[in-house]
Amino acid sequence: MVVLGIDPGFATVGYGIVRCENGIFTPISYGAITTPPHTLIEKRLKEIYDCMCQLIDTYKPDCMAIEELFFNTNQRTAVDVCQARGVMLLAAENKGINTFEYTPLQIKQSVVGYGRAEKQQVQYMVKMLLKLDRTPKPDDAADALAAAICHGTCNMHKFGV
Amino acid sequence: MVVLGIDPGFATVGYGIVRCENGIFTPISYGAITTPPHTLIEKRLKEIYDCMCQLIDTYKPDCMAIEELFFNTNQRTAVDVCQARGVMLLAAENKGINTFEYTPLQIKQSVVGYGRAEKQQVQYMVKMLLKLDRTPKPDDAADALAAAICHGTCNMHKFGV
Repeated sequence: MVVLGIDPGFATVGYGIVRCENGIFTPISYGAITTPPHTLIEKRLKEIYDCMCQLIDTYKPDCMAIEELFFNTNQRTAVDVCQARGVMLLAAENKGINTFEYTPLQIKQSVVGYGRAEKQQVQYMVKMLLKLDRTPKPDDAADALAAAICHGTCNMHKFGV
Repeated sequence: MVVLGIDPGFATVGYGIVRCENGIFTPISYGAITTPPHTLIEKRLKEIYDCMCQLIDTYKPDCMAIEELFFNTNQRTAVDVCQARGVMLLAAENKGINTFEYTPLQIKQSVVGYGRAEKQQVQYMVKMLLKLDRTPKPDDAADALAAAICHGTCNMHKFGV
């Protein structure tokens, strides 16, 4: 099973494509979609949508794992990120792949084994589980890979991945 | 100039298409896109996106006028509506029409002449300005028509509409 993990954002969207087989996680690709500031919101949303479609066309993941959003901070940013997340869900739906949502707590729990783990612990475990030489950068990509690993782990028994 | 007015929502998206010419507003069509509850979020987002594209293809508006979102209420609803609004902006962008955002205050100000007007006053003025026999239903459609009228009014002097 190939999972597209997504760390939703507006200026930066982290992505990580991971093959999950027999409990082994292999990184296929990871990085970030970035959108230019001082550009119309709708143009940035289109950029995210088009890049998401391209990622799905290129790597043909079986599904998408995406972080759930919780907000109680800057309201303007919250609206922007939610709007962007909407087009991410649409891209997966239009490309015919199923979406699975995980809370940050679930992701940390499955990657580190502790729901209140620090960011650095998550990044360290992503590096270890994927046998990478260094911590994936940017941080958004590491978080996206963690979401993909989380989905793989949660479905290991179900699908024998 | 033909304006597509939108009252953003997730379960119900109001729309209103208005021709604005020489300070005269003529309704072309109005109504609401509804999405079924107890259905996957991504399927409901796709429904909204597809309906928006269809509206633009059918009525060929010159632009979209959409209400800005402000939230300090139910957080789950806020995320859903923002995500839906993201796919509305994407639909307009993918169909090549420009988007203009107005706050509820701006819309009330331009339709009623008073930014803190009651909902019923807005509906009454929409009915009068569009020479309708009755108040447009659902309320979401009346709000969408108000957004379209607001854009027409704001640009009356600029474009001689």
